[in-house]
Amino acid sequence: MKFNIKKKYKKSRLGLLTLKHGKVNTPAFMTVGTYGSARGLSESDLDSCNAEIMLCNAYHLMNKISKLCSSKSISLHDYISWSKPILTDSGGYQVFSLSEHTKVSRSGVTFKSPINGDTIYLTPEKSIETQQMLGSDIMMIFDECPSYPLSKDETQESMELSLYWAELSKKTHFTDQALFGIVQGGMYEDLREQSLRELIKIGFDGYALGGLSVGEPKPIRERIVAGLASKLPDDKPRYLMGVGKPIDIIHAVSEGVDMFDCVIPTRNGRNGQLFTSSGIMNIRNSKYENDLKPIDEACECYTCKNYSRSFLKHLDKCNDSLAGRLMSIHNVYFYQDFMKTIRTAIDNGTLDQMIEKVDLVYSDSQ
Amino acid sequence: MKFNIKKKYKKSRLGLLTLKHGKVNTPAFMTVGTYGSARGLSESDLDSCNAEIMLCNAYHLMNKISKLCSSKSISLHDYISWSKPILTDSGGYQVFSLSEHTKVSRSGVTFKSPINGDTIYLTPEKSIETQQMLGSDIMMIFDECPSYPLSKDETQESMELSLYWAELSKKTHFTDQALFGIVQGGMYEDLREQSLRELIKIGFDGYALGGLSVGEPKPIRERIVAGLASKLPDDKPRYLMGVGKPIDIIHAVSEGVDMFDCVIPTRNGRNGQLFTSSGIMNIRNSKYENDLKPIDEACECYTCKNYSRSFLKHLDKCNDSLAGRLMSIHNVYFYQDFMKTIRTAIDNGTLDQMIEKVDLVYSDSQ
Repeated sequence: MKFNIKKKYKKSRLGLLTLKHGKVNTPAFMTVGTYGSARGLSESDLDSCNAEIMLCNAYHLMNKISKLCSSKSISLHDYISWSKPILTDSGGYQVFSLSEHTKVSRSGVTFKSPINGDTIYLTPEKSIETQQMLGSDIMMIFDECPSYPLSKDETQESMELSLYWAELSKKTHFTDQALFGIVQGGMYEDLREQSLRELIKIGFDGYALGGLSVGEPKPIRERIVAGLASKLPDDKPRYLMGVGKPIDIIHAVSEGVDMFDCVIPTRNGRNGQLFTSSGIMNIRNSKYENDLKPIDEACECYTCKNYSRSFLKHLDKCNDSLAGRLMSIHNVYFYQDFMKTIRTAIDNGTLDQMIEKVDLVYSDSQ
Repeated sequence: MKFNIKKKYKKSRLGLLTLKHGKVNTPAFMTVGTYGSARGLSESDLDSCNAEIMLCNAYHLMNKISKLCSSKSISLHDYISWSKPILTDSGGYQVFSLSEHTKVSRSGVTFKSPINGDTIYLTPEKSIETQQMLGSDIMMIFDECPSYPLSKDETQESMELSLYWAELSKKTHFTDQALFGIVQGGMYEDLREQSLRELIKIGFDGYALGGLSVGEPKPIRERIVAGLASKLPDDKPRYLMGVGKPIDIIHAVSEGVDMFDCVIPTRNGRNGQLFTSSGIMNIRNSKYENDLKPIDEACECYTCKNYSRSFLKHLDKCNDSLAGRLMSIHNVYFYQDFMKTIRTAIDNGTLDQMIEKVDLVYSDSQ
């Protein structure tokens, strides 16, 4: 993995990440394909949205698919027919957010699978082995994702366990895949800084801010991002996990973050919530029934070039899965286009003006 | 509309139908897009399957969309973004198969909408007006679709009402769209012949066999098709409505039928039932879990060129709508390819050999 910063504007950075399966322009937004597909979208759909990298969740793929990939000597890329870069998440977030009866010990976590109720024992070593079997471009360390709110003592304990797991993750890593560390420490800045210092000692190819977007008030998250982002190593990619909305992304970029992921474009798309250059549009609103305009007249996506608001509303009402797909395509395209505009603004030194505009169009609720 | 028969082999015909929005090679299979889309498939998906014509149900589109098309001066083609030919069904079949509290009078039918419970009064005139507002390439007359089984007296009464409605349909027709008559008469050959004679007197651009595939035993349907198909005017397209399975299609072709439609390729596709050159494959069978082969190694469809049985099975299990879409694409492509092979066999005089093969691969249950 190579990471070149081509230009800086205040704390924000315009970069290029070179991975085994291709190049990713940063700041970058990674479309989430939990199970190996961005729900409803084929590889050519994602490609038509100019997506350069996809995020898959190792936890969801760990059992069957990693073994299949390993036994048949194929990569996850081959299996899901996606030739561009893939980042695999370690499963930490999923285990702690989706599972019941989670029991954490120093060596790993026992939990009940939300899929079939099986008892599973997952360790940092197993997570990394899985990600190595999948052959992703970027792997994430396995960490404990603390819930919110949590006392300082408990957060410290959790953060220290995550650091121990970070070491185990690093020791298990023997491939040429990149491995990113994840800064934990909840909403306590000093714990976050301690976590970061220790992770840097272990040494990773990139650094992520984890354990955010877990229910904390937005001002607290913003304080953590503003306080921490620019302290992450300057020469490595910085990744803010699970964020988010356009307004949150652009503000985090201005704090020096390079990478993002979120399910919002596809999940909201399936529910008729569409991002446009003039704000959020809800296709289920009755006013679009006879509206033959595309979602966004300024948009060049497949959906906007071929279909009207009225037809999308009609398909959505008929429960035709084509509706969800076309609206997801629009949103994924919007996000990629939004990141491209951010990159141009960094290049031109006009990011502050862009932030002002985005603040106007996308209010807090959006 | 022009219809040229390029070649005949016994009773079967190789033809070319020239419609306002393009050419259709016959024998042709029309993919069903009831609500204006072949569930889950975009216009480019259908196009990639080599589909030349689509069937939409005027009944489902009649209320809102025909009025929208009319008031905005656009065609259904523009609205659904499909530039190739469209045949609209009149709604007769839908009204009688889906509706409750249906009351038939000489001038039309009152029924409760299965969508919103509204009481709707539909007449032959209204159906044709709707289809004219939609601007389809081929319209179907509005008829009564009798249930099965039905006594001869009742069938005769129903058939005579349909003939009266055929006249009303014809009188309402004033555009350059083609209008097809529909032969009724249930399972009684003499009634069918009477229906056909009267329809020919009225004069239509094509003739369909309706009221089949309504629950009657297969041998009865085969007897009606064998007895009637070749009696339909030789110089007009002959359309067997709602049929069906590959084996039924090829046998009907050998009796002289030119056009078919059915929901099987998309409906079965969404449920994991896949047509292949060696018979039906059910992707939900556990044996495909680790099978990295495409659905059909001989198939050139988008799905087979990009995805494995194992991945499709995985997506299907995850309830990802991409599964249904990819499997529908395969089936729609299979059907188009099957029709192309039939056309080549007619051209080469080898249809009988092809029928033998299809009989072997596709047993009665398929």
